[in-house]
Amino acid sequence: MPKDSYLVGLIGSGIGPSLSPALHEREADRQGLRYLYRLIDIDTLGVPPEAVGDLVRAARDLGFDGLNITHPCKQLVLEHLDGLAPQAEALGAVNTVVFDGGRAIGHNTDVTGFAASFARGLPDVPLERVVQLGAGGAGAAVAHAMLTLGAGRVTVVDALPGRAAALAASLERHFGEGRAAFAAPDRLAELTAAADGIVHATPTGMAAHPGLPLPAGLLHPGLWVAEVVYRPLETELLRTARALGCAVLDGGGMAAFQAVDAFRLFTGREPDGARMLADLAELAGAVTAPK
Amino acid sequence: MPKDSYLVGLIGSGIGPSLSPALHEREADRQGLRYLYRLIDIDTLGVPPEAVGDLVRAARDLGFDGLNITHPCKQLVLEHLDGLAPQAEALGAVNTVVFDGGRAIGHNTDVTGFAASFARGLPDVPLERVVQLGAGGAGAAVAHAMLTLGAGRVTVVDALPGRAAALAASLERHFGEGRAAFAAPDRLAELTAAADGIVHATPTGMAAHPGLPLPAGLLHPGLWVAEVVYRPLETELLRTARALGCAVLDGGGMAAFQAVDAFRLFTGREPDGARMLADLAELAGAVTAPK
Repeated sequence: MPKDSYLVGLIGSGIGPSLSPALHEREADRQGLRYLYRLIDIDTLGVPPEAVGDLVRAARDLGFDGLNITHPCKQLVLEHLDGLAPQAEALGAVNTVVFDGGRAIGHNTDVTGFAASFARGLPDVPLERVVQLGAGGAGAAVAHAMLTLGAGRVTVVDALPGRAAALAASLERHFGEGRAAFAAPDRLAELTAAADGIVHATPTGMAAHPGLPLPAGLLHPGLWVAEVVYRPLETELLRTARALGCAVLDGGGMAAFQAVDAFRLFTGREPDGARMLADLAELAGAVTAPK
Repeated sequence: MPKDSYLVGLIGSGIGPSLSPALHEREADRQGLRYLYRLIDIDTLGVPPEAVGDLVRAARDLGFDGLNITHPCKQLVLEHLDGLAPQAEALGAVNTVVFDGGRAIGHNTDVTGFAASFARGLPDVPLERVVQLGAGGAGAAVAHAMLTLGAGRVTVVDALPGRAAALAASLERHFGEGRAAFAAPDRLAELTAAADGIVHATPTGMAAHPGLPLPAGLLHPGLWVAEVVYRPLETELLRTARALGCAVLDGGGMAAFQAVDAFRLFTGREPDGARMLADLAELAGAVTAPK
């Protein structure tokens, strides 16, 4: 049987609204592949996050070609894999598992996806001093991506100082001393005044968490602003920054290119990134359109 | 998400050459459905037949819509199901599992598939006295089908008399006293002389078991002959019987219509039986074509 059919899925909690099935299946349809993307929601199954290991083994046995992994299983899955790609090992988190024969190999396309989106959307901006808001899972991935892209120093700001400190320490371990720092939110004025750009990696700006993640007065025209939130694509932060004349990058690129990179890993075929980005914009727009 | 995508599979031993993926996927493609049929081979997995229960549960959890089940798991799967269709319950064997919400319901489309094939291929033949060769798994399914179709009496002949006796007893329990009997092979001459038709349900005639399942001299023009073997479609038995002027039915119909019935159960959509039968003939022919 020619290897032109692919079975993949997403394991996580509360993943019903995920755009990944549509993103992957639309691209597969354009390429003429038989491709099925299934949602495997631990809440629906009534199993704890630790069941991710059993689910990964079951998927391998039942003929899945690979899996995406999301909250709250990105770290828990590590111990159940047979190997890790460098960016997944550095980050300590996996969002993509590829079955290669009997082996399960972990990747992180949040990192590569954000890097691809940034390189495409803000190709020529200065990267010497980057301020990043948010040190959670998405924050860790995008901070790794920024340093991979050559950022001089990323200063991580989080309402939980311990989390920011831990991420900064991990970044320095992997990218070298002086490449990362952390700070409390009360230093944001001083940091943004001296920064080249801001990466936003908290939930603020999503439909359920409206508002700005920092005081509007701290934004200034010399900054670029990169957003992780993609529902809606145009957050209040991006709208405010754009009005000031800042170069901006919405969160759709990361969402699209993590899928682009996963599709490439699952199939060995080159996806059409521009088309998948357009699909993401359409799908995210459809979901968040006013009633 | 509209329910226009289907994930199904086949659990069994040595199923690599199965035609089911192609049969199902071709029909799904004609209907414009996203449909993936995966082979789950216990030999490849290195698990015993008793693992079928775990595999069925895993398939349900990972979003499969249903499964076909074949040798050696058709009986073993019973205890892991939440309900049985009447023909599966009567036979004590399941070849199709449909997931309905969290429930796994067992069906037997070997029975319904043979019945559909027979009704289509030999619609007007007399059914008063039927001799059946073979009392194994396929034999049990087709004997049930013949009695469902209204056969007066099915006499089962098997090289293992105990197996023939057990099947006849089970048939009488379900269809009434006198509807079934069993006999040793040395009574074949007497039985065939008085029979309306013969159902053949042993492996003889397959590529690996060439030859005739009974002495050629016992065939006579008054008999119809129905075959279960479908690789090759034209067995030595059918060739011999056709040369005598017997009405004949090849095994392709059972193979095709068990898939037709499973497809209908998995999708709730009506398959094109004639097209699936033509596919089966093409696929079985391609496999057994001379080098």
